[in-house]
Amino acid sequence: MPETRKLAMIVHSGTMDKLLCAFILASTAVTMDFEAHMYFTFWGLTMLKKGEMDKAGLPENYKNMEKQLMDKLKEMKYPMPYEMLKRMKESGRLKIYACTPTMEMFGITKKDLIPEVDTLAGAATFLDVAADADVTLLI
Amino acid sequence: MPETRKLAMIVHSGTMDKLLCAFILASTAVTMDFEAHMYFTFWGLTMLKKGEMDKAGLPENYKNMEKQLMDKLKEMKYPMPYEMLKRMKESGRLKIYACTPTMEMFGITKKDLIPEVDTLAGAATFLDVAADADVTLLI
Amino acid sequence: MPETRKLAMIVHSGTMDKLLCAFILASTAVTMDFEAHMYFTFWGLTMLKKGEMDKAGLPENYKNMEKQLMDKLKEMKYPMPYEMLKRMKESGRLKIYACTPTMEMFGITKKDLIPEVDTLAGAATFLDVAADADVTLLI
Repeated sequence: MPETRKLAMIVHSGTMDKLLCAFILASTAVTMDFEAHMYFTFWGLTMLKKGEMDKAGLPENYKNMEKQLMDKLKEMKYPMPYEMLKRMKESGRLKIYACTPTMEMFGITKKDLIPEVDTLAGAATFLDVAADADVTLLI
Repeated sequence: MPETRKLAMIVHSGTMDKLLCAFILASTAVTMDFEAHMYFTFWGLTMLKKGEMDKAGLPENYKNMEKQLMDKLKEMKYPMPYEMLKRMKESGRLKIYACTPTMEMFGITKKDLIPEVDTLAGAATFLDVAADADVTLLI
Repeated sequence: MPETRKLAMIVHSGTMDKLLCAFILASTAVTMDFEAHMYFTFWGLTMLKKGEMDKAGLPENYKNMEKQLMDKLKEMKYPMPYEMLKRMKESGRLKIYACTPTMEMFGITKKDLIPEVDTLAGAATFLDVAADADVTLLI
C-alpha cells in the first residue's frame, strides 16, 4: 500500500484571499487522500479565534474589490473558510496547529480558539511534519 | 540519465515585486534545465489577462519606491515579467496553469488570458505536480 | 549516521511579522540540528543593510497594532531578528545569502550589508540548495 501523501502548510496571513487559497488547497488535498497539516501563526493564528475566520477581509491593496468578491462568492454559494475547515475535519485527515509563541505575543488563550484546533505547538512540531511532507507551503 | 528536476510554484500575488521574484526564480530554474510549473491563482491569475502583467505595481507599503525601481529596471534593461515568460516558453520547459476557481470568482474567461497559458486547472492538478517536485514555493 | 536535515528559506518580505516568523522557524530548525539556509531578496534583502533589520515595522494592514506588538515583545524579552540571526551564526549551522540582482536593483553594495552575510548569490545557488532541502519555504 502506498504511503499517504502529506501537505504541510504554514498559514501566516489572515486576509480572505490568502485564507481561501489555503483552504482550497487543503480541501483539495484532503479529497485526494492527502493528510493536511495546517500550522496557524501570526495573523493566521488570530483567525482561529472563535467567530473570526469568516470575517476576514482583503488586504489594503485590494480593499476596493472586497464587496464585489464577497458578493460573488455568496452568489456561487462558495463555502467560507470555516465551513471548509469543518468539512475537512469530518474526513479525519486535517490537523490544525496553533502557534504557541504567537498566542503569547497576542495574549490569546486556548479557550479563545475554535474547538477544531488539535494541538498547541511551537515551530519544532511543524518542522518535523514538514520535513516528512510531500508538499510544503507558506502563505 | 538523471531525472529532470522540477520547480512548482503557486503565484498568488499580483504585485511587481512578487512577479519579478517568481519569474527570476523560474527563469533561472529553466536555464538550469529544471521544468518550471507555475500555477497562477487570485491576484496572480488576474495578471495573466492580456496586457496586464507588466502593468503590475508595488504594494501599498512600498508604493513610494515604485517609480525609482521601475526606472532602475529600465536603465538596467532588466526584462519585464511577460518578456521572461515568453523566453521561458521558448525553452519548452515552462508550463503555465490558470486556476479555474479564481477565473469563476473574478469572471475571467479563457479568451481574456494570454495565449501562453497551457492549462486551465484546479488545485488537484497542481498538488500532483508539487508532490513530485524538487522545489515548491508559494508567492 | 543520518544525514543532516536542511531548511531552505527565501526571505522576500521586510516587515517585522514576516521577519520574526522566518527567524523563529530558522532558529528552531538550528536547535533541531537542521542546517538553515536563508536567501534574502527584495524587501528582505534591504533588511540585511547594517542597522535596518530591527527597525522593521508591520505592513499597512496591521500598522495600528505595531506599538502594542513591539511593547509586548519587549515585555516578553523576546529576541529581535538580528539577535536571533547572530545566535544562529554561533551554531555554525546558518548560512545567509544576499540576492545579487536585488543588490543591483536597489544600489546596495557588499559594504552596506551586515558582516554575517556568507555569500552574494543569484537564484541558481538557492535552487541547488532548495532542491536538496527537506523543507523549503518562501516568506
